[in-house]
Amino acid sequence: MKLYDLERSGNCYKIRLLLSCLGVAYERVAVNIDKGEQKTEAFLRISPRGQVPVLDDNGKIVWDSTAILVYLARRFGGETWLPGEPLAMAHVMQWLAFEQNEGRYGTSRARAMLLKMQSEFARTGQWDEIARYTRVALQTLEGRLKNHAWLAGDRATIADIACYPYTALLDQDTAALAEGFSVADYPAIRAWFGRIEALPGYIALPRRPAPA
Amino acid sequence: MKLYDLERSGNCYKIRLLLSCLGVAYERVAVNIDKGEQKTEAFLRISPRGQVPVLDDNGKIVWDSTAILVYLARRFGGETWLPGEPLAMAHVMQWLAFEQNEGRYGTSRARAMLLKMQSEFARTGQWDEIARYTRVALQTLEGRLKNHAWLAGDRATIADIACYPYTALLDQDTAALAEGFSVADYPAIRAWFGRIEALPGYIALPRRPAPA
Repeated sequence: MKLYDLERSGNCYKIRLLLSCLGVAYERVAVNIDKGEQKTEAFLRISPRGQVPVLDDNGKIVWDSTAILVYLARRFGGETWLPGEPLAMAHVMQWLAFEQNEGRYGTSRARAMLLKMQSEFARTGQWDEIARYTRVALQTLEGRLKNHAWLAGDRATIADIACYPYTALLDQDTAALAEGFSVADYPAIRAWFGRIEALPGYIALPRRPAPA
Repeated sequence: MKLYDLERSGNCYKIRLLLSCLGVAYERVAVNIDKGEQKTEAFLRISPRGQVPVLDDNGKIVWDSTAILVYLARRFGGETWLPGEPLAMAHVMQWLAFEQNEGRYGTSRARAMLLKMQSEFARTGQWDEIARYTRVALQTLEGRLKNHAWLAGDRATIADIACYPYTALLDQDTAALAEGFSVADYPAIRAWFGRIEALPGYIALPRRPAPA
């Protein structure tokens, strides 16, 4: 199994984290996005949007980090990481969707803009909107986690694997740069970080990139 | 079964379309977002982000249109609308993720801005970025549909149900307002529209809203 990967990407980290928790061996293929390798014709054949991560499981190709989490959870995780029962599955999906909306267009962009990263996220966007999404993201997570240990059901699922990285990266990298983005203000999120970091197979977040 | 619903919302339409294709009876509960009903304390208990649609299946609550599609497909659709086999499921998920990214932040915003709708989408955002996402969205759909009848696998799934509405609404409502956003330029997408509109249970798109 091959993962087309970018070390500093939170979306790639999601996959590495789940693979590590599942104990599945794989080969990392680094894609150099600074050289535009994700936009070559060969790469676009396996990733039509020209993005990492992409998984190649012996010729079975899956693009998109959320789709890869679903694939790995169902292929290697039994009923643990993505249960098959309709309501339980839908409750995981709620948070995968949340991560793709408030997470991607709030939390991860807020961090990228604050770090002035040379990324798609940092190039465009309006700060007020991004900050508003980020506050909704943090408040919504806090609201759930105040009364529950995990986002969906009563154990860790790919909902937690998906929502953790950019929330934790925001805190790790930018808490000091903007008011209200530190989990110091969100005790339930902070405690959830601790539970995730205690999962067997947990691996550390990508390190903070140097400002561009 | 109750659907908390907004007639003009493409995301609510996705749910109504799938329910109709599945032949499942339900009650529509109109939520008046112009009066802020989606932000009341009672509504936030079932929809933590304060958004429609929400499904209440005899007390089983699911928020988020993608999560509701997954729930309904697995509860009522057998293996048809969302197959359980890991790779087939992941291939559906790819397009659900695509719709939440390029679809939501490109296609549906482009339409909202062109129509000057008083919506969350229209209030903010930068046209160049939105137009770029929209072009990626249309080109990616066209690329898949040039060689395949459906987005995932070889039959209609919730991937098609999710990606159809805002793509078709863009064409229906705004093709005349901006260059390059008409499916006249995308013959494979146009043909796919025809296949979706021929599905048993198909219901018409919401009508174009009056400009604000």
